[in-house]
Amino acid sequence: MVRRQASAPLLANEDPRDSFDDQERELLQQEAHNQTKRERRRLCLCLGLAIVLASTAAITTIYLLTKKSSLLPGRSRNVIMMGTQTWLDEILVGASRTRSSNSLVTDSAAGATAFSCAKKSFNAAIAVDPNGIPCGTVLESAKQLGMLTGLVVTSRVTHATPAAFSAHVVHRDMESEIAVQQIGDYELGRQVDLMLGGGRCFFLPNTTEGSCRTDDRNLIEEAFNKHNDYGWKYLVQIRAEFRDLIKEHDKLLPLPVLGLFHSSHMNFEIDRNPELEPSLSEMAHVALKSLKGRADSGQGFFLMIEGSRIDMGAHNNDPVAHVHEILEYHRTIKVVRDFVKKNPDTIMISTSDHETGGFTLGLQPDPATYPDYLWRPEVIAQAKVSTEILTSQLVAFHAANPAPTAKTTGGHDQSQQQEAHRRRVQNFIRKDVLEHGLGIKDASDDEMAFLANPLTIPNDLLRFLGHAISRRANLGWTTMGHTGVDVNLYAESSPDGGERILEGLMGNHENTDIGDFMVSFLDLDLSSITERLVSSADKWFKRQRDFAGFSTKHSLHEETGH
Amino acid sequence: MVRRQASAPLLANEDPRDSFDDQERELLQQEAHNQTKRERRRLCLCLGLAIVLASTAAITTIYLLTKKSSLLPGRSRNVIMMGTQTWLDEILVGASRTRSSNSLVTDSAAGATAFSCAKKSFNAAIAVDPNGIPCGTVLESAKQLGMLTGLVVTSRVTHATPAAFSAHVVHRDMESEIAVQQIGDYELGRQVDLMLGGGRCFFLPNTTEGSCRTDDRNLIEEAFNKHNDYGWKYLVQIRAEFRDLIKEHDKLLPLPVLGLFHSSHMNFEIDRNPELEPSLSEMAHVALKSLKGRADSGQGFFLMIEGSRIDMGAHNNDPVAHVHEILEYHRTIKVVRDFVKKNPDTIMISTSDHETGGFTLGLQPDPATYPDYLWRPEVIAQAKVSTEILTSQLVAFHAANPAPTAKTTGGHDQSQQQEAHRRRVQNFIRKDVLEHGLGIKDASDDEMAFLANPLTIPNDLLRFLGHAISRRANLGWTTMGHTGVDVNLYAESSPDGGERILEGLMGNHENTDIGDFMVSFLDLDLSSITERLVSSADKWFKRQRDFAGFSTKHSLHEETGH
Repeated sequence: MVRRQASAPLLANEDPRDSFDDQERELLQQEAHNQTKRERRRLCLCLGLAIVLASTAAITTIYLLTKKSSLLPGRSRNVIMMGTQTWLDEILVGASRTRSSNSLVTDSAAGATAFSCAKKSFNAAIAVDPNGIPCGTVLESAKQLGMLTGLVVTSRVTHATPAAFSAHVVHRDMESEIAVQQIGDYELGRQVDLMLGGGRCFFLPNTTEGSCRTDDRNLIEEAFNKHNDYGWKYLVQIRAEFRDLIKEHDKLLPLPVLGLFHSSHMNFEIDRNPELEPSLSEMAHVALKSLKGRADSGQGFFLMIEGSRIDMGAHNNDPVAHVHEILEYHRTIKVVRDFVKKNPDTIMISTSDHETGGFTLGLQPDPATYPDYLWRPEVIAQAKVSTEILTSQLVAFHAANPAPTAKTTGGHDQSQQQEAHRRRVQNFIRKDVLEHGLGIKDASDDEMAFLANPLTIPNDLLRFLGHAISRRANLGWTTMGHTGVDVNLYAESSPDGGERILEGLMGNHENTDIGDFMVSFLDLDLSSITERLVSSADKWFKRQRDFAGFSTKHSLHEETGH
Repeated sequence: MVRRQASAPLLANEDPRDSFDDQERELLQQEAHNQTKRERRRLCLCLGLAIVLASTAAITTIYLLTKKSSLLPGRSRNVIMMGTQTWLDEILVGASRTRSSNSLVTDSAAGATAFSCAKKSFNAAIAVDPNGIPCGTVLESAKQLGMLTGLVVTSRVTHATPAAFSAHVVHRDMESEIAVQQIGDYELGRQVDLMLGGGRCFFLPNTTEGSCRTDDRNLIEEAFNKHNDYGWKYLVQIRAEFRDLIKEHDKLLPLPVLGLFHSSHMNFEIDRNPELEPSLSEMAHVALKSLKGRADSGQGFFLMIEGSRIDMGAHNNDPVAHVHEILEYHRTIKVVRDFVKKNPDTIMISTSDHETGGFTLGLQPDPATYPDYLWRPEVIAQAKVSTEILTSQLVAFHAANPAPTAKTTGGHDQSQQQEAHRRRVQNFIRKDVLEHGLGIKDASDDEMAFLANPLTIPNDLLRFLGHAISRRANLGWTTMGHTGVDVNLYAESSPDGGERILEGLMGNHENTDIGDFMVSFLDLDLSSITERLVSSADKWFKRQRDFAGFSTKHSLHEETGH
């Protein structure tokens, strides 16, 4: 395996936390770090992007597995499976073919099920087979073998990828049911020892404001209720609690722990408020250190880490949010690689479930003119806010600033008031949205008119802003959905002979091969888990059929994806 | 290295020539084969495409090198460097980063120079460094060591990729000068022993019809004139001559041989007339067999094989021409892999200089509607002609069928004649172009109107037809030019210990690393070639400055690419 160093200097600048020897100091320094890192990041972004985006196809998820000592007594083995695209150039080993059982273009649910169950299934399937029958996952099987398990994501924890390791439903949108299973209310009981991410709204009853649930169950109460047998012990909901909990427990997270840092998805890294939400790399660092520290000798663990919102930045066709997610994912990869290097019997695998956006570095802005061969990372480097936030702000601004009408002005000074309103709107769009938000100072009249129209629907605004910056950077998108191109596969092993094991990952693979690889490395037995799940399938099917708003039959044949 | 078999059955159907043991029989069977292969191809195309296109990022060129016996007396070593994307899934080893010295998006000239000179240079550079100084190439250095050399392409032999191995000019468009150097009229004399492709027009004087030259030199006459010292012996210009020459010479091509099968680029495989032009796989098969058969014991050879027009299909945004080029490239890969397996000390490398088109499997046809996750290979399977040919036919039809005017009809029956003309045009477009050519039977009124307008310029027709079929297949393009994404890297070695050598190609590389790898494997010395070239640089620069239409200074700073 050739390990190339070309991108290292750039990314080293991005990550001042090369060594995590003193986690406490690191955490105390985090605040200062957060304040200065955006400035520093911006300094190297122009150069960094050249490399970062150059390998940006589609990878968003990290899996870390540490081998139980069943084969080599006295040793614990670790595997880390990851998923994104930049620190990674050094550890590229192959590619993954992503089609699902019913579509040449997969969604994330079928994509994650290919990894978790080592089975192709239909788009929308969450750890169920093409017939909708639940299939045992690597996380469940690892737990069965007595290993520790973890899920670290920036989406809702009930979203497709983490769900496909910890729940079984016939449609990804059944997130209320996914949360029920995740706390432990299903055949296998609680399977996850550490679960960090967003998605609190699916754990709160629909009688409370901001709930996403379809029923009035309070899953947080149920999870921590000692009358239930789930065993959850610790809950954190903002970053300060997260840090305090670590401080109070020997500088490690106590287990089992549930961290729900946002009502829905956590914020994009570029928009993140460090007072409220930890970064992906911080969560990954803490998770690794804690799983290792809490594990008994030789126990091993399975950890899935997802840079969930790389995909979402691409769905929005927003190259700004996208690249900052990727940079954070790379910092996370660095954290995990450092762990792998220091821990024997550990393997990290990093790949994606699919490409999103049909994103390419190079665009023909005008179909009638042969394109210049260039793209302009400096345009991206000037932007400071995601188009998701800017769209919300613009929608809110329009709502708060309706155009004056004869009715509202009573005919008095109407044209003056309209002119003042027009100037206010123009000023907000030109200064706040375009200049300050995206670094765009050359908006055309057509662009201004489109954004100033209060009737433009939010999704059109979102796409328009993404394309405004993409076009200026000469970046192209073919879709706000997924594509069917192969995605990169990265892997690294601890330097203890595990390199040989990596040979099984080299070359071009079906995505299910990656699931099979994890099964093989950890000596898992998915079929025994499947048998247990199937034994309760009647009850399980009934619950799904009863589930508000979903018909099993319908879900099985629908191609829905995000 | 994991060797996966998933795509083999499909592609095996595509290639009835698994064994080339009896070349003569094979050639005699070729005609029958050509007549039936389209039918057979179509049968498996629906399925085949799912795999073929799924790994279609960007690869178009093949290099085959066979090692001279300098290290291991009595053995000849072979390396084959290739470039496209489907038989290849079995032999994926990594990826190549493609940026040039002056652009994040390379052109083919700088891309090929990265392989041939192992140097980054500016877009448009043909084997010259960023200062415009000529740099020695792997082909020239191999020749210097006494190895045989070959170039097999489907573009003009004077086009960027073959040129960058066999000529030195500051701008790729100087094809008249490239041809001069290729016949042997430069510092090093004739360097190529076998050169097959298109591009005859650059070898004929501008006093003859169809010439592309900027002067009146007859390079074919010069190449074969015994008063010159170039030593060319055999010329073939149509496939029958090619086959006859082989028959007459112990079933091998005699060397040195120049095959120019088309005035410009050879036809796309889907449009190829087997009476006139050989296929890429046939040329590659003959070249391999002949270079091996003609080489002295231990002499070794370097062969570059390019599926040149994969890139051009993508430039046209024509998924039909594109996939048929890829299928033919895969048949060629099969030929080369069979050779590698049977010949010790042989390595094949297959990669591309860049991606073209920003091509993705998955498209959002309507920006206002969230896309379905699908693409439809069956749409591509129904098409029978490239959009390049259809555009030519449509332009010719419009020219031959001007709309009747008062002047042409003398006012007599004008409206009847206009209606008859309108029906004739509509019928041609609907039946000949769309239905028969592209398999499109649901053309909209808007589409018909666009194509029926005789004022639409050819390039707009070309793009329109490509997008008409792409949209129906749910395939997306972001440009008619290149992009900056990484491209796949494939390699295979003979099963004699060469596998270890391949480790140097595993992972993510700069494109120049691939040039360095070839230098290292063949023990080449590029700098001594560069020294010889530089020693004549004064004369060389003058000739370039004098060259019609080009200023060196201008060329160095222009970003031109194809």
